[in-house]
Order: sequence, then structure tokens, then C-alpha cells
Amino acid sequence: MRLNDTIVALATPSGAGAIAVIRVSGPEAIKIVAPLFKAKSNKNIQEQPSHTLHLGNLVDGQRILDEVLISIFHGPKSYTGEHTIEISCHGSLYIQQEIILLLIKKGCRAAEAGEFTLRAFLNGKMDLSQAEAVADLISSENQASHQLAMQQMRGGFSNEIQKLRQELLDFASLIELELDFAEEDVEFANRDEFMRLVAKIQDVLKKLIDSFAVGNVIKNGIPVAIVGEPNVGKSTLLNALLNEERAIVSEIAGTTRDSIEDEISIGGVGYRFIDTAGIRETQDIIEGLGIKRTFEKIAQAQVVMYLVDSSLLFSKSEVRRPKTKVGNGENNSLEQVKFEIEKIKTQFPQKPLLVIANKIDYLSETEISNLKSQISDLIAISAKENIGVDKLKAKLLEFVNLGELRNNNTIVTNSRHYNSLLKALEEINHVQEGLNNNLSGDLLAIDIRQALYHFGQITGEVTNDELLGNIFANFCIGK
Amino acid sequence: MRLNDTIVALATPSGAGAIAVIRVSGPEAIKIVAPLFKAKSNKNIQEQPSHTLHLGNLVDGQRILDEVLISIFHGPKSYTGEHTIEISCHGSLYIQQEIILLLIKKGCRAAEAGEFTLRAFLNGKMDLSQAEAVADLISSENQASHQLAMQQMRGGFSNEIQKLRQELLDFASLIELELDFAEEDVEFANRDEFMRLVAKIQDVLKKLIDSFAVGNVIKNGIPVAIVGEPNVGKSTLLNALLNEERAIVSEIAGTTRDSIEDEISIGGVGYRFIDTAGIRETQDIIEGLGIKRTFEKIAQAQVVMYLVDSSLLFSKSEVRRPKTKVGNGENNSLEQVKFEIEKIKTQFPQKPLLVIANKIDYLSETEISNLKSQISDLIAISAKENIGVDKLKAKLLEFVNLGELRNNNTIVTNSRHYNSLLKALEEINHVQEGLNNNLSGDLLAIDIRQALYHFGQITGEVTNDELLGNIFANFCIGK
Repeated sequence: MRLNDTIVALATPSGAGAIAVIRVSGPEAIKIVAPLFKAKSNKNIQEQPSHTLHLGNLVDGQRILDEVLISIFHGPKSYTGEHTIEISCHGSLYIQQEIILLLIKKGCRAAEAGEFTLRAFLNGKMDLSQAEAVADLISSENQASHQLAMQQMRGGFSNEIQKLRQELLDFASLIELELDFAEEDVEFANRDEFMRLVAKIQDVLKKLIDSFAVGNVIKNGIPVAIVGEPNVGKSTLLNALLNEERAIVSEIAGTTRDSIEDEISIGGVGYRFIDTAGIRETQDIIEGLGIKRTFEKIAQAQVVMYLVDSSLLFSKSEVRRPKTKVGNGENNSLEQVKFEIEKIKTQFPQKPLLVIANKIDYLSETEISNLKSQISDLIAISAKENIGVDKLKAKLLEFVNLGELRNNNTIVTNSRHYNSLLKALEEINHVQEGLNNNLSGDLLAIDIRQALYHFGQITGEVTNDELLGNIFANFCIGK
Repeated sequence: MRLNDTIVALATPSGAGAIAVIRVSGPEAIKIVAPLFKAKSNKNIQEQPSHTLHLGNLVDGQRILDEVLISIFHGPKSYTGEHTIEISCHGSLYIQQEIILLLIKKGCRAAEAGEFTLRAFLNGKMDLSQAEAVADLISSENQASHQLAMQQMRGGFSNEIQKLRQELLDFASLIELELDFAEEDVEFANRDEFMRLVAKIQDVLKKLIDSFAVGNVIKNGIPVAIVGEPNVGKSTLLNALLNEERAIVSEIAGTTRDSIEDEISIGGVGYRFIDTAGIRETQDIIEGLGIKRTFEKIAQAQVVMYLVDSSLLFSKSEVRRPKTKVGNGENNSLEQVKFEIEKIKTQFPQKPLLVIANKIDYLSETEISNLKSQISDLIAISAKENIGVDKLKAKLLEFVNLGELRNNNTIVTNSRHYNSLLKALEEINHVQEGLNNNLSGDLLAIDIRQALYHFGQITGEVTNDELLGNIFANFCIGK
């Protein structure tokens, strides 16, 4: 990993906009940019203080590339900890490209993905979990994931891990000190106190590990499978939840053969809705594949919404729209619906199931009551008329334990951290076992070191090029 | 037009990136942002000097929205001439949106398209033609259009117009002074000198008006129609010129029914290639429509490239690929090609025509010589093998008079300016006529004032809300 060169990248999204920002970081950042920049004030930016802004022309010899604004940051008072120049130029793709090419010609190297943040980590500006939170923050799409990323970036999680690690480290030192005096049979580390510490660490680790269930869904969105016959209004419901015309609403039965996914933010939490084909039996080979996929999607989902077209369940009403031919009419009966609900419940007994009767605007009050009496916990809605959609949203929010989020508890969102925590807990359990079995200090020390190793991997005290490579490769260029 | 409020907009392209910049401008800019910003240094940004940068948290009450970098600009030392704050935040769409919403909640107004630049104009930071150049600069896609926009933005064109306007204004004043002394029959304005000035202004105006032919094509790209039978390799040629796989290359004859347009930069100049269907007679109704459109496109183009598949013109070679069935084989003869070239030349006698023989990699040297002797000025290429493509590029460059560009002459690129120049010239011609006819000073003054009015419209001395509305509506939001 080279850190002694100067890197350059576009920091703003690619595309044309009013302005674009090009970031240069490294020991030569100011030295490389200075001769290319003619300040309006005629000042030399090499002599200007940190955290100042300068207007002028960026030039390549006699050719003026653009009128730009230059921000100067002297290391270590910068994002990367190195000397940094940010060039705010006009947002033309051509100009962006020309400036970056010029800087490369003058000695910069095109930055790799995440390299600015990698340098910030390597220069001690942030620990590894904070660096990872930067990427989470950039990709955060709703209040909850934003809050978690902010908390992590500001060191909430790191502090918790650091504290445990320090306490464990103190004990490890004492135990290792005992080893130096092995022949004298002294005990510097109080075993009772150590037992209490180990129990405390177990508690904290278990809590953190448990929090991942919440953190993971908040970060990635809660997967919700919408299941139902063709034409029951799945796309319309998605649109009602989305408040936008994102999914294609089609009156043609069976058009949703491929499952489509869409993320919608409800109450600050992201939900990934997985629209699937219906589950009715069919002779259509393509539809048949869709049904197989439906069950696969249910297996992946955390919540299942079973949607039924309630307007097809009663045959006497005058205002009814014509029956569609789907499922040979069999699925249009209440008995069929009940049968299918049982089918899902049998297949997925642990999976929360919301049974939703759509198109209730076609029903009379009596019919709605009738329906509710026959199917327990039925949610009656009309996606088209936006009736009951808010109630459904509230129901969906019940599946997320937002208590921990609201109480500002530390929540683990990163599967790498989760895995390290699991491994740390395993080692801590070994330590506990060892203590219970009066294991000798040297053997105890091995397990403690292992636990410390896993803690260190989270915050980056323990690291290697491969780990760093994996983490920062997922960043965008320019961060 | 309200200028007394404070506006906010995203200045960087929309989308997720490493960072995004939100721009706030107006009398309250610093006052609105200050209470929302907790500087790491604990400094109050209201007390900080202009052109300084500050790291800290952007907060909404207790909630931290993001760790941001704040740039402070005190009016008039800012882009708009007003107090300005630029907030550099993490590039999450959610964060961008939350910050803008917060600022609107706290008293900012969402900026309209081009409103920052409009304010810069109204505050005297730039004239109208410079403001227009900002939009041109942002949309510049190649060296030539970039150079023209930079020149205009830096006031090259404005200076030229201003100088003429001032000289004319001086004479106008003298002539109007004469009117005050009408009864005394004095002549303050020397008529001979005035005649010379008018002639000079005519010269300059004519040169500027003429330059629009170059400026317009440089700004918008030179339209080049590529005409030829299906399957002669039009898409492959486009790709060879483009050096990228942008157009869909298809071996299936007749796939290019709709004309596709693509802009390619050659030698720093943009060319808009208009790929059209062939011109052969056909019974296919859709193809027939394509041929009608071909002639329409040729009419719009500045240059026509007629492309022929040379591999189909000789029947004895062994290495020939199989004849395709297009055009019943008739068009595969040299006679047919000559006939069609004549057809285009007759239809468009003034239009430069490049006759290009493609796929010469299938021909022997003798066959190529034979072809060249029969069709004058033939350009022999193989788009697939990249033979002769550079020569074709050089030929295309000959159609742009880049001399004026290279000599840094002022080139008019804006059709609004062009129209104002035409009108100014018309008035100046009236003035000249009046002088020749010994018209009285009061009548001369009317024409002079009209000419001054048109000059003033270019630089913005003379303006109105409608004109400004039209100009800035074409800007992007945030500029």
C-alpha cells in the first residue's frame, strides 16, 4: 500500500451539474496544484494558511482550463490527514476530465475506490469501523440507516468495543505478568474479578450480536414478500405505499411473472418489497416457475403479505366488476383463500403473515364485516382509493424493534463486525470455561489473546492488506 | 424578481457520490446556517472571515444530520455577490435532501434554475453574455466549445461589444447635444469621423455575424449525415470514429431504420453524426419512410458522407464474403453507386459530399486503384480494421474553419447574440444611409439609439424580466 504518493479523484457524483469537486491528497498535493493555479489575488497558495478558499484560474501553460475555487487543507488537519486541495470547478464533464488528466500529468495518481478514507484510517483520523460507517452513511437512504451510520461514524460502536478491549487487555497483562513469575505461584489477576469481567463482556457481546438482527434489516431494508393471485392489486399496493408510480400497474392478469423489488421508506425505515407471482396451481410453465420462485422469495422474506382481491369473493353484489378468469374461478372463493393462507402458514410456520383484503371499495359494510369474521387479523384496504394503507404501514413498522434505535443503543449493522463479535464471544466462552476449570494462566492467555484479536479486527488495531482491500473496494471512487 | 430572500440548492450533480455541495446565497445565508452548525472549534461562523473553511456538525436541534465542511463567502466577494455558504456534506441522497429541507424550514427558499447566476448578473458580478457563457461552459463537451465558452465567460465578447457601444454612445451624445443647440445649426459630431466609425462598426459586426456560422457548429456540433445502403457499415464506422461500442453494430440489413444521432469529438470539435437508412428504392413501406427521412436529414446536415460497401462491387475476387440480398443486387454495381452519388449531388448541389468506400480490406490493391480511378476524391477505408479512419477524420476537420478559433478571434456562439447583432447591423446601415442622405441629427439619433439598444441587449445593459426568465430557465438548478 503506497501512501507516499499524491492521489486525485472526482469527489462529487459523475455527471453534469453546476459545480464539481476534484480532491487531491498527499504530500505533494499543494506543491502540484500551486503552479497550475493563478489566484485572482496573485497570492501563491503554497504560502496560504490551511482552511482558506481562493478564487482563480486553473491553467495548463497558457491555456485556461476553468475558473475554479481552491480549498486548502494542511495535514494533519484534513479528511485524509495529509495535505489536501479541493478544486471546485464548473460541472462540465469535459472540464472535470481535463483537470484530472492535467493533475495526473503533473504527478498525481488516480485514486482507487475508498483510498481517501483508507488514508484517513491509516493516518489515524478514524478507526476501521468509523471508516466503514462513511460508506454506510453515503448509501443511507432513510432516517434509521442514516442514524445508525452517523452513530457508528462518530465512534459510538468503536468506544464500546474499545472499552471492553481495554479491560480485557488489562487482565491479559496481569495474567501474562503471572507467567513471568510462574515459579513463585503468585496471582496478580484476581480470578473472581476476572470472572465478573468475563460475564460482563459476554453480556455486552450477546447484546451487540442480538442487535445485528435489527441493524441488518435497518441497513439493508426489511424484506417483505407480497404474495397473491395475479390482478389482486400488488403493484397498486406498492404504488400506494411508495406514493409514486414506480411499479407498472397493469390490469392484465399474470403480467408480474418476474419478481420485482422496490425499496420504500416507511416511518424512517426501509422495506424491500418483493413482488411475486401468485401461488395458484397452473398449467402455464412460465407461471409455474413463478410459483416456485414465490416460495423461494417467501423463504428469504422477513414478513409475508398475502393479498387477496376481496371484490371477487362475493357474487351477489350489483356493483361488482366482472370476474377475471384467473385460476378457473376456484381461487375467487373464500374457501380457496383460507386454504392458501393455511398453505403458507404450514410451509412457513414461523414467518409473520399479514392477510390483506384489497379492493374493499367494491364491498358493502356487511361484506367487509363478514370477511373479517371469517379471516382473523384481516387488514381491509383499498390500495387504489388509499383506504387502510396507513394502518398497513403501522402494522409493518411493528416488525422492527425500533426501541433500541430510539434509545440510542449501539446497534451492529455490519456483517463483518457481527462475525468478529461471534468469534470474540466464542473465545470469551473458552476463557470462562478455562476459569471454571482452573486452567493455567498460560492457557487462559491464549484464549484472551484470541478474543482481543477479534475485537481488534473490528476497530482496525489488528488488520492486514487483504482485509483493508476488501473493505475499501466497496467504497466509491473519490471517497 | 425577488432578490431580498435567501436561496438554497444542490450545486453538485444529483446522485450518490463521495460528497455533495449545497449552496446557500442571500442576505440571511450566514445567519440561517450559523445556528445549525456546531463547529469542531466551537467558533461561531458569524464571526469568521470570508473565504474560510470550517469542519463541524450540521444539526437539527439534538439530531446530527451530518459532519460537514462549511465554506464562508462574504458578499460581494462571492459568486452571486451576496453572502454565501457552501455546505460540503456526505454524498447520500437522503442527507442532501434532509439538509435542503432543514434549510427551507429555517427560512431559505428553493432556488430556481440559474438563480445563483441571475443574482450574479443582477449584482453586477458579470454581464449577461458572461452569464450565458456559464451555462455553455457547463455543457461544453469538447475542447473547441470549452474554449469558446471560456473566452465568452472571461468577457472577450463583452469587451468587443462594449467598446463599439461606447464609441457609438459618444457620437450619439454629441449628436443629441446638437439637438439642444438646434437653432444655432452647430455640428459637434464630425460627420466624416462618424462615417468612419459607422464603417468600422459595420466591419466588426459583419465579422462577428459571420463568425456565428463557425461558433454555432462548434457549440452544437457539426451535423454530418451518413448515407448508404443497409449493411455497408455505417454503425461500424460510427464506432470506429467513436472508438467505443455506442451504436449497435448489426449484420442484419435494414436494422437502422430510425436515424440515430451521436456526438463524437474529433480534433477537439464536436460532430453530430446522423445515421440514416439507405436511399435505394424499396417496396417496404417502413424503409420507404426511412428514405424520405434520409433526404430530410441530408437537408439538415452540413456535410454528407456517402458510404458504400466496396466488397460488393467486384464479383471475381475469391476472398469475397457472400453477397447480401439488399436492393436486389442492383445497388451492388459501380454504376448504381455512381448514379446515387449523382442523385445526391443533384438534390444538394451546395452540400459538401464525402464518398467513402468501406470494407476495402476485402479488396485487392488493383481493385482499390480501379475504384479510385472511377470515383473522384474517393476515401477508401475499412471501419472494421480501422484503415483510413484517421484520414477521414482529417477530412472532416477541413469543414470547420478553426483558424479563427486558433487566432483567439471573438466567435459568436449564441443565437440570441447573433440576432441582436443582425438587428444592430440593420440599424447601423440605417445610420449610414442617413449620413449619406444628410439626414438631420434628430432622425439620426433615433437609429443610433436603436443600435445601442441591440448592443445593450447582448451585454444586459438593456434587459427585462421576460428576457432574463428565458435565459436563466435553461440553466440547471444550483447554478
